Amino acid sequence: MNRQELVKEIFDKKSFLCVGLDTDLKKVPTHLLNEEDPIFAFNKAIIDATADYCVAYKPNLAFYEAFGVKGIMAFEKTIDYLNKHYPHHFVIADAKRGDIGNTSAMYARTFFEEYNLDALTVAPYMGEDSVKPFLGYEDKWVILLALTSNKGSLDFQMTEDKDGERLFEKVLKKSQEWGDDTNMMYVVGATQGEMFKDIRKCAPTHFLLVPGVGAQGGSLQDVCKYGMTADCGLLVNSSRGIIYASQGEDFAEVAAQKAHELQQEMAAELERIER
Amino acid sequence: MNRQELVKEIFDKKSFLCVGLDTDLKKVPTHLLNEEDPIFAFNKAIIDATADYCVAYKPNLAFYEAFGVKGIMAFEKTIDYLNKHYPHHFVIADAKRGDIGNTSAMYARTFFEEYNLDALTVAPYMGEDSVKPFLGYEDKWVILLALTSNKGSLDFQMTEDKDGERLFEKVLKKSQEWGDDTNMMYVVGATQGEMFKDIRKCAPTHFLLVPGVGAQGGSLQDVCKYGMTADCGLLVNSSRGIIYASQGEDFAEVAAQKAHELQQEMAAELERIER
Repeated sequence: MNRQELVKEIFDKKSFLCVGLDTDLKKVPTHLLNEEDPIFAFNKAIIDATADYCVAYKPNLAFYEAFGVKGIMAFEKTIDYLNKHYPHHFVIADAKRGDIGNTSAMYARTFFEEYNLDALTVAPYMGEDSVKPFLGYEDKWVILLALTSNKGSLDFQMTEDKDGERLFEKVLKKSQEWGDDTNMMYVVGATQGEMFKDIRKCAPTHFLLVPGVGAQGGSLQDVCKYGMTADCGLLVNSSRGIIYASQGEDFAEVAAQKAHELQQEMAAELERIER
Repeated sequence: MNRQELVKEIFDKKSFLCVGLDTDLKKVPTHLLNEEDPIFAFNKAIIDATADYCVAYKPNLAFYEAFGVKGIMAFEKTIDYLNKHYPHHFVIADAKRGDIGNTSAMYARTFFEEYNLDALTVAPYMGEDSVKPFLGYEDKWVILLALTSNKGSLDFQMTEDKDGERLFEKVLKKSQEWGDDTNMMYVVGATQGEMFKDIRKCAPTHFLLVPGVGAQGGSLQDVCKYGMTADCGLLVNSSRGIIYASQGEDFAEVAAQKAHELQQEMAAELERIER
C-alpha cells in the first residue's frame, strides 16, 4: 500500500488506529481453547469486530514464535485472512529485525514477497546495510525504531553526542539518506508526548507508528497535538487495551467498543486538519 | 551450559570454533533437495562432520523464518538433534531480538525453556527492560550486540558522546549493570581486529562471540592477540567459510576439513595460554 492509499483510508474511515495482534494463548478466552487453532480463531474474531474502526493491524511476531510451528501457522493464517478479506488494511509485522545485509535480504523476501505484508519494524543498531535490503520493494515500508515507549529507551536512545544530538535524532536523520517518507516510517512511543515536537523537527513529514497509548499510559491528544501532519502522518497502535478489554465470551464485542471509542477520538482530531 | 563447562570444552577440544548454521535452501547441494527436509538433512550432515572440531553451533533464525513453517520445523529438528546427540555443544540462536519487557519475556521462554538453547543474541537499542527478561535463566546466556562486523556498524555504534565514549562502549558498560560474565557475552565483529583492545578495556573477562572471520575478512590472529583472556573468552564463528566450502556431494567432508583447519589454528592460539 502506498502513502496516498493509506491516507485515503485514514480520511475515509476517520481513523488512524492500528490494532496490535499481540495474541497470547494464556490470555485467549477459555471457550476458544477448544478450537483447532485458538490463536487464529481469536485473531479472526478480533479482526472482524474491529475492521471498521481501524486502518492497520500489527501482529507482533514474538507472540507467534513463542508457540513454535503452531504459532507460525497461526501467524500465516492471520496474514492470509487479512490479505483475502481486508486488502485495504495496512498490515505490519512487528518483528524488530535487523541483521547483516544478506540476512536482512532473506527477511525482506519472506515478509514482503511471501507474506505480502505492507510493512516491517526494523531495529537500527546495525546501520545502513541492515536496513537497505527492506527498502527495495514498491509500496512496502520499513518502520524503523527511533524512540520506543519503554523505560529502557532512556539507556541508549537519549544519549547525546558531542553536538548535543541524541541517538534517536541521529537515527531519524541518518536513515533519511537511505529512504524517504514514501517507504519509511518511524516507531515513536506515545509515552513521551512532548518529544513529538523534537521528532517533527527531524522528520516533519514521515508517518510515525505510535505504540504506548492506553495500557502503557500515553495520551492520544498529546500525540496529535505535537505529531500530526497535514495528511495525518500517524498510525496509533493499541494492543492490550483493545484485544484483552474483556476476556469473556464477549471479547470481540468489547474489543469493537474500545476500537470504536478510539476511532471517535481520532475522528475529532482529524477534523482539525483542513483538506 | 555454564562458563566452567564451556571453558572445559574449549580446552579439551582445543577449539573455540562456533559453526554458523546459516542454511539457505538456495545453496544446499542439489542432491539433498530430494530429501523430505533438505534444510535439516544439510544441517545434520554438517553437524556430524564438524562436531569434533567445534564447541558451538549458531543457527541464524532469519534463514529458517525465510521458509515459513517448513523453515521453523527444520530449525526445531536441528535443535532437537543437537540437544539429543551433542549435549556438550553450546547452542546459540542468532535471533537479534529485543522488544519491550513482556514481549522479551515471551521470547526468553521460547528459546530457553521450550528449545533449551544455551544462548540468544539480543539487540541493545531498547535498553534494560528489553534485555533483562533473558537474564533470569540459570546457565543460559544473553549475547548482546556491541560492535558488529558489517559496514553499517559505523553509522551508530561508533557515535561518540560528550565524553568521547562510543555507543558500543556505552552498551558494554551499561549492560554490566544488568548481567555479568557468567550470563552475558557480547557480539564483536572480527573485521575490526584492533578494536578488541578497546573492547577488553570495557569488558576484560566477558566471552565474546566473534563473527566476521573468513568470508567477511577478519583475522583470527588479530582477534586472539587483542581479545583472548586467561580462559580463552572467545567463540569465533564461521558460517559460509565452512558450510558452503563445497556445494557438491562432498560438502560435509569439505566442511569438516575447513573446520579442522580452523581448529588447528585455534589450538596454536590456545597453547599460548598457561593453565
